[in-house]
Amino acid sequence: MNTIIQNVRKKVPLIHNITNYVTVNDVANIILACGASPIMADDEREAEEITSICNGLNINIGTLNARTIHSMKLAGKKAKELGHTVLLDPVGAGASTLRTKTALSLLEEIPFDVVRGNISEIKTISKKQGTTKGVDADCLDTVTKHNLSESVAFAKSFAKEHHCVAAITGAIDLVADSTTCYAIRNGHPMMGKVTGTGCQLSGLMTAFITANPDQILEAAVAAVCTMGLAGEIAYSHLKEYEGNGSYRNHIIDAVYHMTDEQLEKGSKIEKF
Amino acid sequence: MNTIIQNVRKKVPLIHNITNYVTVNDVANIILACGASPIMADDEREAEEITSICNGLNINIGTLNARTIHSMKLAGKKAKELGHTVLLDPVGAGASTLRTKTALSLLEEIPFDVVRGNISEIKTISKKQGTTKGVDADCLDTVTKHNLSESVAFAKSFAKEHHCVAAITGAIDLVADSTTCYAIRNGHPMMGKVTGTGCQLSGLMTAFITANPDQILEAAVAAVCTMGLAGEIAYSHLKEYEGNGSYRNHIIDAVYHMTDEQLEKGSKIEKF
Amino acid sequence: MNTIIQNVRKKVPLIHNITNYVTVNDVANIILACGASPIMADDEREAEEITSICNGLNINIGTLNARTIHSMKLAGKKAKELGHTVLLDPVGAGASTLRTKTALSLLEEIPFDVVRGNISEIKTISKKQGTTKGVDADCLDTVTKHNLSESVAFAKSFAKEHHCVAAITGAIDLVADSTTCYAIRNGHPMMGKVTGTGCQLSGLMTAFITANPDQILEAAVAAVCTMGLAGEIAYSHLKEYEGNGSYRNHIIDAVYHMTDEQLEKGSKIEKF
Repeated sequence: MNTIIQNVRKKVPLIHNITNYVTVNDVANIILACGASPIMADDEREAEEITSICNGLNINIGTLNARTIHSMKLAGKKAKELGHTVLLDPVGAGASTLRTKTALSLLEEIPFDVVRGNISEIKTISKKQGTTKGVDADCLDTVTKHNLSESVAFAKSFAKEHHCVAAITGAIDLVADSTTCYAIRNGHPMMGKVTGTGCQLSGLMTAFITANPDQILEAAVAAVCTMGLAGEIAYSHLKEYEGNGSYRNHIIDAVYHMTDEQLEKGSKIEKF
Repeated sequence: MNTIIQNVRKKVPLIHNITNYVTVNDVANIILACGASPIMADDEREAEEITSICNGLNINIGTLNARTIHSMKLAGKKAKELGHTVLLDPVGAGASTLRTKTALSLLEEIPFDVVRGNISEIKTISKKQGTTKGVDADCLDTVTKHNLSESVAFAKSFAKEHHCVAAITGAIDLVADSTTCYAIRNGHPMMGKVTGTGCQLSGLMTAFITANPDQILEAAVAAVCTMGLAGEIAYSHLKEYEGNGSYRNHIIDAVYHMTDEQLEKGSKIEKF
Repeated sequence: MNTIIQNVRKKVPLIHNITNYVTVNDVANIILACGASPIMADDEREAEEITSICNGLNINIGTLNARTIHSMKLAGKKAKELGHTVLLDPVGAGASTLRTKTALSLLEEIPFDVVRGNISEIKTISKKQGTTKGVDADCLDTVTKHNLSESVAFAKSFAKEHHCVAAITGAIDLVADSTTCYAIRNGHPMMGKVTGTGCQLSGLMTAFITANPDQILEAAVAAVCTMGLAGEIAYSHLKEYEGNGSYRNHIIDAVYHMTDEQLEKGSKIEKF
């Protein structure tokens, strides 16, 4: 995985994002930070055309509505038709019937390359029902060292069932295809105090897999490590009086400066 | 009011926000900064279900439209049915007939715990008509030391009429129920140069009252003091070349570090 | 152009923005930074009323949809009826048929004072068709020293045809009416790594032309210089570990402190 970021910066993939209005600005800036280029467009009359001029598509169901769900489906189908890489971030699946159903129907209609969510969202999709505490993972579900081997098995079976890479993020992150799972221990607890670090990771990951289509699993792992490592570096730059407002900028700044060498050194990965 | 922030950080209330797309990211981050957890959802098909898994609801009519107004009403009624705390921020009431009418009809249909706005917005609601200079308070209306006693009486009567706590913010802030009014002199004029400090205060206040349902007046006062004091602290950290862009982050940072002790010491409150 | 910023700070024009949800917060903060006041409202039932209480209107078609396009037209016509200054930012014209058609029909129905876009967007409008690489300018189109005289001629002819000031921004910026064109060489390449610097410039420019209605060409030039110079100043304040996240704030900060004197000294303008 030693040229993954370099490939992003060299190819400058154009990433179409249909995402929520809460964290959209940070998603755009982190995509720019890693060397790719973002475009946001969610009207049904242009979703297919916009995705056609792009290289990858990031679908995020936070603040979904009837209009944007329709655009997600149109864009997702067109993108796969054109051989683009497509990622799903099922924000809040389990928090409402609308979100659970939307995530499930998107998965049914579009062959996603990667599904990235927290453990509650991914379990909801897996069970085809569920409840989550808002948009954050339920504590009871958290991946820990105690349930790691069973969580790894779950990640692989999810990936197998949905023919995709599964990226399940939390204190310990898991990235798996049907046969291999990586557990990643980068990151900092304070990242949970910045809104949308998950959405940002999804944008970043779409850029990484789009610039590295022949190694999607490795690119997804690199994206998770980049985000986590950026959280660690950002924390080291925090002044005593700085809080989550400044931390948010430091994270994007750290992605801006990230190199494959830094990633190689800083990644905390275990293979299963 | 010496455990109000502590209660927020201990209970971590989940706050449902139906708010405008201009300042939504800062609202989410300030809710996280104070120790609560935000969720944004404005589709009519999920508004009631999302609010049901939350503890409090923040309704803000900036960038309202037909779709979101309907969701506000559904969520507001459901939240009150469940005994949740609900706050209204009537952004721009008086600036357009749509906003004035929407604020009035929300107040008619939902028994809000707190209404927070600037003096022009609150006067518009009180008179059931009005004009404001955009989303900022009209200078002629400003609460000053010269009209303070009459403003205090107005705040109490508004609270009485609408069976709520009235939080009227400006250079001097007033927070009142039908019998008691607090005048608060925290804050810094430069806060007016950051978009959405009012929206942020509404998010913060919803978190504070939700974690302190038995002392809503005191919690609303504490929220106003926290925001004002954060503005003062943030200003003290500004470097010579920094402006409103950095100030915005410093304010959220200061809320992140705020404690009940700091608040106790820094609050400038007068009781009427 | 030596009192242009001073006029903004003295008159504090209220600027109505119908703009995209990606960069709207930065647009609001940069309008505040330069001394004006922003209001965002995009519902068709209030678009005309809101624009009536304002002094200028900024229409930006990023993340357009059927609902907001209708509001743009209502607001644009009402604003011109009232003699307000109106600016069009045709974000992504050429990237989709919807955007190209929308830009063209807005131009047909509303006599804009200024059209501000990158060279690909402006050429798309000029040819009434086109393709762009997302929301960024196509490299082949870029204004360079080699094609400068022909680009100047294009800018003047665009301005003449559309009875407006044309502001075409890129590495070299051109601002022209039918007879005069200014080429501006301020700015820093890193500005392309911050999402929405173009949208921010459009907001800033609307404030500048609204406060200086008798010298729209000069005010548009001053806005371009202010933004570019802010990018240069912001870059000089970047710490080694800071990236595009912090740079974004430094740019707004630099606008906050900008004076006509600083602009006079720092502007790199050539007249054609």
